[in-house]
Amino acid sequence: MEREHISTAFDIELDELRQSILIMAGKVELMIANSVKALVERDTPLAERTIAQDHEVNAAEVAIDEHCLELLALRQPAARDLRFITIALKIVTDLERIGDQCANIAKRVRELNEEPPLKPYIDIPRMAHWAEVMVKESLDAFVNGDPDLAVKVCRDDTFVDELNVQIQRELLTFMIEDPATISRAIKLNYVSKSLERIADHATNIAEMVIFMVKGKDIRHTIA
Amino acid sequence: MEREHISTAFDIELDELRQSILIMAGKVELMIANSVKALVERDTPLAERTIAQDHEVNAAEVAIDEHCLELLALRQPAARDLRFITIALKIVTDLERIGDQCANIAKRVRELNEEPPLKPYIDIPRMAHWAEVMVKESLDAFVNGDPDLAVKVCRDDTFVDELNVQIQRELLTFMIEDPATISRAIKLNYVSKSLERIADHATNIAEMVIFMVKGKDIRHTIA
Repeated sequence: MEREHISTAFDIELDELRQSILIMAGKVELMIANSVKALVERDTPLAERTIAQDHEVNAAEVAIDEHCLELLALRQPAARDLRFITIALKIVTDLERIGDQCANIAKRVRELNEEPPLKPYIDIPRMAHWAEVMVKESLDAFVNGDPDLAVKVCRDDTFVDELNVQIQRELLTFMIEDPATISRAIKLNYVSKSLERIADHATNIAEMVIFMVKGKDIRHTIA
Repeated sequence: MEREHISTAFDIELDELRQSILIMAGKVELMIANSVKALVERDTPLAERTIAQDHEVNAAEVAIDEHCLELLALRQPAARDLRFITIALKIVTDLERIGDQCANIAKRVRELNEEPPLKPYIDIPRMAHWAEVMVKESLDAFVNGDPDLAVKVCRDDTFVDELNVQIQRELLTFMIEDPATISRAIKLNYVSKSLERIADHATNIAEMVIFMVKGKDIRHTIA
């Protein structure tokens, strides 16, 4: 009976861990959407709020790390649970770095909003949408232990990479045709590169999920 | 006596973990140096070997992860050792991603070596040297629990960021003056960006070391 009681309490704690990671991921997804919404709608106060939100994400990482350490120290989990907790430790690091990228995007947006728009923003919001979906799906794959969804995330990364290359080429054309656009084009290029890095983090998370579920033979072989 | 025996065996295992992380870091440092040496000396076979070496680094990550899981499961470490092992889990992920960046650099170098050099390469080798030193020092800070060295790594990152901005500007000038240089300039820009990301990973490692040694109040406050 005692054993069963401990196991149930531990299950509840694991569920709490899952929940707090999903809450952290939700904050990060909102930051992705808002950093680019602030660009499209020229909403500098929204950019400011996104920059400020990075602190919440940083605090969430520290809290979840501590929670994982506590579970490892007090519950001494084995096998599957141990693997879940150690992957959780790695995943929150990726989420925190996505938050950093969003704050960086918002800082460039704050500057871009002080000048006339270089062009209508179409591909950058598309990229942001894909990146946000990839983050969401990589986390869903993690909490549900769903390797198929994780494989989908890895495949979607190619599309975001291609969008980034396309945006870079287009911005280059602007710069060559009119050097007055260079400063803005460099900032937009930075935004695009940051979104690409966010998608890379989602891919990293997805790869870890595949590893968690299927074992060591899969990681580093998905392209 | 039994207790002491266990503790000593565990100390030996922790030392083995430290050693295998340093060996992995050594491989990664060599990859940084060689990927750029292959550019400067137009040595495509060296670029090929660097690309191939990425598999060794990936395998090292998987092996060290498994070692950490084993230590957590069998030794059930507490406090400082637990923190050390969980940080080790995060650090090898950064090392593995540095390996990825080096392989990506080497792929671009393989292409660049098929065309005449755009210009003498001066700043890119300097950046690579700094990035390599940062990786080495972040790992030294980790195994020796040296927060001062870790703070130095975080500060050095600014210098690498500045070099990257300078290189990007210079390449832009080339592209504007002569569109025939665009393809090569974009590849060199990619190399420069990858080196900057490597330095970012070293900074991430250094921040985790500061966190490990000094506790939760420091992380996310060092710039």
